Amino acid sequence: MSSWQEYLAANRPRFIDEMLEFFRIPSVSSLPEHAGDVRRAGEWVANRMRQAGIEHVQILETGGHPVVYGDLLHTPGAPTVLIYGHFDTQPVDPEALWTSPPFTPRIEGDRIYARGATDDKGNMLVPILATEALLQSEGKLPLNVKYFFEGQEEIGSPQLPDFVERYKDLLACDVVVSSDGGQWSETQPEVAIGARGLCALQIDVVGPQMDLHSGMFGGTVANPIHALVAILASMRSPEGKILVEGFYDDVQVLTPDEKAKIAAVPFDAAQEQARLGIDTFYGEPGYSPLEQRWVRPTLEVNGIWGGFQGEGMKTVLPSEAHAKITCRLVPDQDPATVAERVAAHVDKVTPPGVKVSVRRFENAAIPYLMPADHPGNAAARRVHLQLYGKEPFYVRSGGSIPVCSLFLASLGAYTVNFGFGLPDENIHSPNEFWRLSSFDRAQQAYCLLLHELAKPA
Amino acid sequence: MSSWQEYLAANRPRFIDEMLEFFRIPSVSSLPEHAGDVRRAGEWVANRMRQAGIEHVQILETGGHPVVYGDLLHTPGAPTVLIYGHFDTQPVDPEALWTSPPFTPRIEGDRIYARGATDDKGNMLVPILATEALLQSEGKLPLNVKYFFEGQEEIGSPQLPDFVERYKDLLACDVVVSSDGGQWSETQPEVAIGARGLCALQIDVVGPQMDLHSGMFGGTVANPIHALVAILASMRSPEGKILVEGFYDDVQVLTPDEKAKIAAVPFDAAQEQARLGIDTFYGEPGYSPLEQRWVRPTLEVNGIWGGFQGEGMKTVLPSEAHAKITCRLVPDQDPATVAERVAAHVDKVTPPGVKVSVRRFENAAIPYLMPADHPGNAAARRVHLQLYGKEPFYVRSGGSIPVCSLFLASLGAYTVNFGFGLPDENIHSPNEFWRLSSFDRAQQAYCLLLHELAKPA
Repeated sequence: MSSWQEYLAANRPRFIDEMLEFFRIPSVSSLPEHAGDVRRAGEWVANRMRQAGIEHVQILETGGHPVVYGDLLHTPGAPTVLIYGHFDTQPVDPEALWTSPPFTPRIEGDRIYARGATDDKGNMLVPILATEALLQSEGKLPLNVKYFFEGQEEIGSPQLPDFVERYKDLLACDVVVSSDGGQWSETQPEVAIGARGLCALQIDVVGPQMDLHSGMFGGTVANPIHALVAILASMRSPEGKILVEGFYDDVQVLTPDEKAKIAAVPFDAAQEQARLGIDTFYGEPGYSPLEQRWVRPTLEVNGIWGGFQGEGMKTVLPSEAHAKITCRLVPDQDPATVAERVAAHVDKVTPPGVKVSVRRFENAAIPYLMPADHPGNAAARRVHLQLYGKEPFYVRSGGSIPVCSLFLASLGAYTVNFGFGLPDENIHSPNEFWRLSSFDRAQQAYCLLLHELAKPA
Repeated sequence: MSSWQEYLAANRPRFIDEMLEFFRIPSVSSLPEHAGDVRRAGEWVANRMRQAGIEHVQILETGGHPVVYGDLLHTPGAPTVLIYGHFDTQPVDPEALWTSPPFTPRIEGDRIYARGATDDKGNMLVPILATEALLQSEGKLPLNVKYFFEGQEEIGSPQLPDFVERYKDLLACDVVVSSDGGQWSETQPEVAIGARGLCALQIDVVGPQMDLHSGMFGGTVANPIHALVAILASMRSPEGKILVEGFYDDVQVLTPDEKAKIAAVPFDAAQEQARLGIDTFYGEPGYSPLEQRWVRPTLEVNGIWGGFQGEGMKTVLPSEAHAKITCRLVPDQDPATVAERVAAHVDKVTPPGVKVSVRRFENAAIPYLMPADHPGNAAARRVHLQLYGKEPFYVRSGGSIPVCSLFLASLGAYTVNFGFGLPDENIHSPNEFWRLSSFDRAQQAYCLLLHELAKPA
């Protein structure tokens, strides 16, 4: 019996062919006409899992696109890890900007161009291949593994919370490993330990029941745009501090170690300003840009509208004005509580003469943070040290990764982010690609990780 | 020779027929396909003036729709009055809401339904008929009269300032009388002595050169909507006082007599609130609603937009945000100076991280105010006392009447507003009408007014 290293090397051409076959299935989850393709991709995954030697492989219904489950639970006393990934993709538009058809994968040098190549079909295939290599070379896995691949991550996994709750016994585990993610660069590993949460709301201001002539009525009737502007302006200080009462109440204070880990991550302000076309950054005083993005909450108006927006002028005193707001949240803020506090603030500062209502959207996300030195992260770190010869950066996402919070809430398990995409690979854009070198490194990484996770913490 | 009263009575059926003929010409000035109709209406007016006995009748070119001029200058030593009106109309849309075709006049009881019936073809025909009646009954006019009817009032008379400047010798006069306007009610006369001016501008705020992900960048990059909101909020106090430096500098203070004249005009707050669907009025403290509308300047945001405006949420930190503003101005505010001060305020309060520009629109209007006891108004008052048996209200317009400011600036003459429309006659709307009783009263009023204006002040 050869080593898993030898097995991987010997089967590389076949694994690449199989990956290309997987990429040919146009599993676009947002387009109803591709629902059958998403399911076909799930079936392809299920078959590939069986072929790898994974047991109890089954397609489970969510009410939306399906989930594929399987397991190998033959190591009593060892931990159980749940490996997560998704086989659906973003749409391809604008298709005209692709240099080759998005579902006809093309290899050019080290790069495989295809929609879903890095996000996440290539990355999610890896743990299946690593499992096969370990089984073929060592006869068994060093710990218990459950495999959980879903088909609707790109549309926000709407049925996943109910699904995970329903199958929590089946999915029970000590730690989750997500294959959906990436590394800092080809030479620099990272461990992603947190993501901001989210709450979203809309403010609707109504004044007179029809648009009015600004000459006949201006100066005597409250203008909904002015009311809205006053409400919104009251929410942030000129420096960007949020003035909603209680907004920062539940925010965790950074420990010196957390601060040091963020400070260790390089941030090139001048380069980023040039790329964004801005003269200066802006934000809450007392925090570095990465701290502002990763560990401080925000309140941003995403859209505003009211009255006349055409060419030239129109002397209207409008009947209505509207604004959309999202808040990015950090541990331990609760989306519903923050939305409540923003709504209370709006009530408090609403001027006379208008009616204001606050609508809350359902797209909330709970902030996520796991200990940087969690045993799962410690295992990932050891793998990175072997593969890159470097300490990883400990990073967080300014955006939201709801699945991590979901697994924590429903399964009581933290998620180790262990993907091998790189930042330039055009995810969600035309000409998405993945590197063959990353494909190779990822397979080794997963073989190493399963061994590292099997060791006592 | 009969009296002018007898002449008007005897010729009433003919005058009504002629007016209906005039209304049949679809002289819509804003629609290029009706340019020929506007000119035809001007020719109809010119012919009717000649038939009335008016001399030197001619059609003068403006570069846009034409002007019709004529005069009767045979009373040396007496004052010269310039009578103004317009023969163009608003469009008819939505035509489906008219109960009979807008250019097929229909008489129902006391009402004549037609586009332009009250605004302003009916009202502007009256001084021509009154002239005929005086000439036929008295052989001559009691003073010198120039007639000046234009064809583009409904599109803002774009060529009129240049035209009046070019023909200022021809148009020279002691006072202007405008037939474009109305009375408070069927039983209550009014004298309109002022109108607010206007300046208009747009604020454009630009931040990053593309829309950004609010998770990745929120908290570190200035959001143009927040910048705009802060700029706009800084312009008005919570009570509605305008905080732009120097904004009120040139505003005239009300005299006790002016205050009393405004206080004499009834204002039913409860009824108006119900009609507008608002709970309360709003405005600069220390002034009554009519004072706020007539003699205090405003700054109103007429439109605002930026970022995402669709259904649900989108976590965008937008690249741009915009607002349109108009200020209503009162004597002695200068539109250019006020626009300058608003722009200077914007410069002063612009937060870091965004670029802000202020565009000024050309649609400025100079505020207008004439002495309530101007000899022209005194003459109008005496006519009203005879016809209504009541003192007139002295009113102003919250909107703008640029022609009055134009005549004052170019000819040095104030404009007496002397029209007989009533507030319910659907001007600019479907089913515009005028009252035959107003048509009769207006003819008497003009015969009386020319006599009153001929008397020494």
